[in-house]
Amino acid sequence: MAELNQLSEDFNQYLSKKIEVKDPVNLYQPIKYILDLGGKRIRPLLVLLATDLFESDYKNAFPAALAVEVFHNFTLIHDDIMDSASLRRGKPTVHHKWNENIGILSGDAMLIQAYSFIEEYPDDIYRKIMKVFNKTAMEVCEGQQYDMDFEQLQDVSINQYLDMIKLKTSVLLASAFEIGAIIANASDNDRKNIYNFGLNLGLAFQIQDDYLDTFGDEKSFGKKIGGDIIENKKTFLYLMALQNSNSEDQLLLKALYKNDDDIAKIKNVSQFFKDKQIPDLTQKSIELYTNEAFSFVDKLSLSSEKKEILKNLGLNLMNRSV
Amino acid sequence: MAELNQLSEDFNQYLSKKIEVKDPVNLYQPIKYILDLGGKRIRPLLVLLATDLFESDYKNAFPAALAVEVFHNFTLIHDDIMDSASLRRGKPTVHHKWNENIGILSGDAMLIQAYSFIEEYPDDIYRKIMKVFNKTAMEVCEGQQYDMDFEQLQDVSINQYLDMIKLKTSVLLASAFEIGAIIANASDNDRKNIYNFGLNLGLAFQIQDDYLDTFGDEKSFGKKIGGDIIENKKTFLYLMALQNSNSEDQLLLKALYKNDDDIAKIKNVSQFFKDKQIPDLTQKSIELYTNEAFSFVDKLSLSSEKKEILKNLGLNLMNRSV
Repeated sequence: MAELNQLSEDFNQYLSKKIEVKDPVNLYQPIKYILDLGGKRIRPLLVLLATDLFESDYKNAFPAALAVEVFHNFTLIHDDIMDSASLRRGKPTVHHKWNENIGILSGDAMLIQAYSFIEEYPDDIYRKIMKVFNKTAMEVCEGQQYDMDFEQLQDVSINQYLDMIKLKTSVLLASAFEIGAIIANASDNDRKNIYNFGLNLGLAFQIQDDYLDTFGDEKSFGKKIGGDIIENKKTFLYLMALQNSNSEDQLLLKALYKNDDDIAKIKNVSQFFKDKQIPDLTQKSIELYTNEAFSFVDKLSLSSEKKEILKNLGLNLMNRSV
Repeated sequence: MAELNQLSEDFNQYLSKKIEVKDPVNLYQPIKYILDLGGKRIRPLLVLLATDLFESDYKNAFPAALAVEVFHNFTLIHDDIMDSASLRRGKPTVHHKWNENIGILSGDAMLIQAYSFIEEYPDDIYRKIMKVFNKTAMEVCEGQQYDMDFEQLQDVSINQYLDMIKLKTSVLLASAFEIGAIIANASDNDRKNIYNFGLNLGLAFQIQDDYLDTFGDEKSFGKKIGGDIIENKKTFLYLMALQNSNSEDQLLLKALYKNDDDIAKIKNVSQFFKDKQIPDLTQKSIELYTNEAFSFVDKLSLSSEKKEILKNLGLNLMNRSV
């Protein structure tokens, strides 16, 4: 078993060797720029870890891990344009540093690059990875579309919301694990189970993200508390609060969301959530999905020691220390 | 040998069966919309024709032909955003009918769809198609970036321009032929030669496009004459004129390009081109690339009857009757 730090370090070296700036520089420079912004490299780590756990050399997973990371960063560039976001990891977004056209085109190029990196695998592995990759990539687009659609909708159910975050973020975490398992020639059952581990962990993680945005500790969360409330986001908390309110209280919450005074708005909405037991209900959902995720770990044909590693990784991700 | 009309008809039927609108409709509707705008479907026809000529059932080429057509239309959606174009084939562009975000995302989804369609092929064919497709897709992005770069540059050489149009448009025509040949298990030499036929034909076609925009017949060309001049485009004619002028005349041409009176501008620039023998030089270049294209047809291991079909297709494309 390799140490996680070792995997990350080796992967970052591989990435910087593979991501080169060539002509036309306005196409390739933004690609290097966004990848050099860093980030936690969670997705490639999941690919490498799965390959390692299923007893293949994790170095075999580098090209696929890079494909997943480059794909993820392609979605970030395009999402940032769609959200008109000016900052990403504290630095100017690609379309802000260059312009929207360059953001669109370098994003397109990254999606194609991701596909190219996968070409390094032998036929049988290649087919399997491509099948997962194509399906996942399309689902991520669908998730982003639902996310944009929901901004315009008055009524979004919790189930619709969960389906959306599943597509937009969880399937890629799930596929990262599955692709790692494919590279190590894991069984179909193991592939399915590690995929479902990632899928449920992703849901737990995303719901926790919503929770921490309102009820987290600013220092450990790393973002300003209340951002989602200020931006009128239809988060898990908000939708859960609506679902647990009568029509009168629903109107009250919608009215609170219209307040122009940010500080009062955060205070009042948070209090509304508390009155409706939303923090508690949300914690229960996080726990539910985490336990569901762990139930799939238990089904893996791995030693209990390796299962612990996956569960600990899950817990670490949830505590945001990775 | 199937008739070209038959290939086109069958392909259109296949396309409408495969392109469905499902949820989220805001993602899939724009895809159907742009594909339903029609167009000449030249690229899929080249795939089908090559498969047919190398003696495989052209129906085997449907998925790859669809991938090529969907890829091409993905580039149209994103290019239209980058060019702020409001019309495409006389109808509102996708980002104009919906919005830019939907244009970006449905374009992304089309690129992924294109990759998915190729999954239908058996392993060996699949690998070969993917290799060509990945390389070509990246080249098309590079071509688009050079095109955008050139708008900002004062000095672009004819060679730079030819490299740009080669990447932006010719490689996809070339690859369409090659992919069709791959599906029919043509030899490596035949693959290379039919690729180079498409590449040179594409260059001839693109140069002719520039020629017709200024010196064509409005009715048969189908666009307003002089559009490139009004938009200050650095066309083959313009760059050739610069290259064949002393510094004094270069300044004169640049001054003519600054005229706000469109009618006078078209008249004066056209006259400048004529004074520099540009129509003649351009016709010679078109002929050169057409002959170069045909020289690759002569190298194909096909009957002379089939070679004639390819050359006639080339001539038909050049006469814009297809």
